[in-house]
Amino acid sequence: MKKIILSAMLLIAALSLGAQTKEDFKPATTNQPNHQYPMVNSQRMVRAQVKATDAKSVKLDIGGVKYDMVNDGTGVWTGDSAPQDEGFHYYQLEIDGASVPDPGSLYYYGASRWGSGIDIPAADEDFYTLKNVPQGEVSEVYYYSSVTGSMRHCYIYTPAEYKKNTNKKYPVLYLQHGGGEDEHGWPQQGRTGIIMDNLIAAGKAVPFIIVMDNGSDTYGPNNPRPERPAAGAPRPQGAPAQGAPQGQRPQAGRGGNPFAGMNFAGAFQSILEKDLIPMVEANYRVYNDGAHRAMAGLSMGGMQTHSIALANPKLFSWIGIFSGGVFSTEEVDSTPGFRENNKLIFISFGSRELENRIGGAADPRPITEELGKTGMNTVFYVSPDTAHEWQSWRRALYNFAQKLFK
Amino acid sequence: MKKIILSAMLLIAALSLGAQTKEDFKPATTNQPNHQYPMVNSQRMVRAQVKATDAKSVKLDIGGVKYDMVNDGTGVWTGDSAPQDEGFHYYQLEIDGASVPDPGSLYYYGASRWGSGIDIPAADEDFYTLKNVPQGEVSEVYYYSSVTGSMRHCYIYTPAEYKKNTNKKYPVLYLQHGGGEDEHGWPQQGRTGIIMDNLIAAGKAVPFIIVMDNGSDTYGPNNPRPERPAAGAPRPQGAPAQGAPQGQRPQAGRGGNPFAGMNFAGAFQSILEKDLIPMVEANYRVYNDGAHRAMAGLSMGGMQTHSIALANPKLFSWIGIFSGGVFSTEEVDSTPGFRENNKLIFISFGSRELENRIGGAADPRPITEELGKTGMNTVFYVSPDTAHEWQSWRRALYNFAQKLFK
Repeated sequence: MKKIILSAMLLIAALSLGAQTKEDFKPATTNQPNHQYPMVNSQRMVRAQVKATDAKSVKLDIGGVKYDMVNDGTGVWTGDSAPQDEGFHYYQLEIDGASVPDPGSLYYYGASRWGSGIDIPAADEDFYTLKNVPQGEVSEVYYYSSVTGSMRHCYIYTPAEYKKNTNKKYPVLYLQHGGGEDEHGWPQQGRTGIIMDNLIAAGKAVPFIIVMDNGSDTYGPNNPRPERPAAGAPRPQGAPAQGAPQGQRPQAGRGGNPFAGMNFAGAFQSILEKDLIPMVEANYRVYNDGAHRAMAGLSMGGMQTHSIALANPKLFSWIGIFSGGVFSTEEVDSTPGFRENNKLIFISFGSRELENRIGGAADPRPITEELGKTGMNTVFYVSPDTAHEWQSWRRALYNFAQKLFK
Repeated sequence: MKKIILSAMLLIAALSLGAQTKEDFKPATTNQPNHQYPMVNSQRMVRAQVKATDAKSVKLDIGGVKYDMVNDGTGVWTGDSAPQDEGFHYYQLEIDGASVPDPGSLYYYGASRWGSGIDIPAADEDFYTLKNVPQGEVSEVYYYSSVTGSMRHCYIYTPAEYKKNTNKKYPVLYLQHGGGEDEHGWPQQGRTGIIMDNLIAAGKAVPFIIVMDNGSDTYGPNNPRPERPAAGAPRPQGAPAQGAPQGQRPQAGRGGNPFAGMNFAGAFQSILEKDLIPMVEANYRVYNDGAHRAMAGLSMGGMQTHSIALANPKLFSWIGIFSGGVFSTEEVDSTPGFRENNKLIFISFGSRELENRIGGAADPRPITEELGKTGMNTVFYVSPDTAHEWQSWRRALYNFAQKLFK
């Protein structure tokens, strides 16, 4: 008996010393060309490495936790994280107190900065993996906005057949990023073009165009940026701190919208109505009615979608809100024209968001089910084992796209 | 007299202490959104700033020189560089021996890494400044290569009128980056789309399509990457060190090609002939003869253009070599078909490259003038006060594009 207890204690000690780490690390798919680090193992642990010959302290900062890295004596520092969820995560290194991008990774815009990102392999990664199927294009487009009085920047996905079927018109999805992100989010970390090409090649989605614009920076000479509150000034209640990582943002639910009262959707709605939609409909072979327009967004972009859909219910008949709240039956019925024009309300969350609802926010599932029972076409999708992060939103797009314009 | 000498000595001391720095620094145009640093002043000095609370040493590393930065006592480090040439430069920070991207800048691929870049205002920057003129698109395109056996990634610029004039065919320029760079170079730091839109809007260039591919990574299952020489193994004579900044690369001239014997153009020529040109000509409304095809490249891309033009003289009638060598009369006359098919040989350098020719390389101007006297249409362009850097190549493209397909 004593022997068994001793063995068990040794086992616990070995486990706590990290002896359980599987040494099957491979370079991440999101690394810079010819870079070996960061790596990921089959337990979804991240191993980072950086040369910092004169540093006293180097840390890997991922998922809201800072992991100490160790100097091998030659100034090369290496360290492992705990297992991460499947999919894409923002991260950074901390070198003697400086928070900097990892020189080994590619860079992404999120958490209000261009910085490191890493993709953790996922069981279902096939749907966002580049394949030799007919390829659409993601085009970088500048256009003049009368609302801002400046040139704006967006990305437009056109499906492979768009260049060939020159007499065919296409429907359009307007697809928005989250807070602290911008128009690069969906084409880069969202892998929108690859997801769509694979879906269309498999016959699972009808071909449509996707417009990805910047829903945060709506400023310009005609709409000046408001003065910033002084450092230390109180934030609006429930609003996330500037630069807070996506994973730590509060979750929205009925009555729990942390951006409520911030009117963040107003300027973007004007840009959509006056500049972006007219530009797209003047330059691309697209339908120009609400029945052939969809809007969706993640987190803040979902809240913008919610606000705009209620403010102008004829603009978009197909609506997707990914980790950004719900529509209640009350909202729908108090908005003239909404019920008649709408063809789909798609609501999604990561499963961990539903497990960890903040501040007693209402459960979004029964709210959506209740709306469905009133005759609206609703879909409620839950991404398994993911939080308020890009893997939830890649999966949301993959599922939403299959329902659109059918 | 003694007083004058003392005054002069004080002046020299003041100058050497940097007292001459003009405090008119402004945020660089290449900064991340809402970031104040790095800044540039009217003397073209760069001022970087980073928070590194526990660091012992922080340096600004730009133009091959490391400048000490100073801790203000709160862990915020600030430092200035010497004046830089006009235009775009790669740079990084060094924090306690770690070479990392500056968290304040946007990131670019060059010097064999994604890292910081900064644009120094230039007297002629108008030609590459975004304006409210008809906008073309820069599209991200994946295509399958039989040569590599893998999917490849390129960018394709189409002019504004391309979507409207659906019965018109366009000529095509294949435009290549330099060593340590990739297909992102021309659309991002090269500002290709903006330069072309401005030129076409001003009636200075005819509308054409530009294809920007990766001329360095030509590997895949069908063309495996060669094993790397062991660390410390001798490099091919004259070849630049891996990761050497662009500004320090040796300059090519007749007989001075530092990549000679490396056959770097062979695989890329096969990709062009078998995969890339067929893909473009199958998917875009373009002419499919050499008279309507141009190829140009900078540095290594210029050497590839030179090799491919001599190996297959019917492929491209319009040739541009930016800081990448020359064509000699002997080369032209020993290549059957070259003289008859060629319509333009455009050769350019930064003026500082011509001042600092390495290893007794021949002067490229008389070689080009000699070729012109034999009846070839040659242009020799020199970018004023710039070196082997992007400002030379933006100006080269601006001038070359005005001569093309006319």
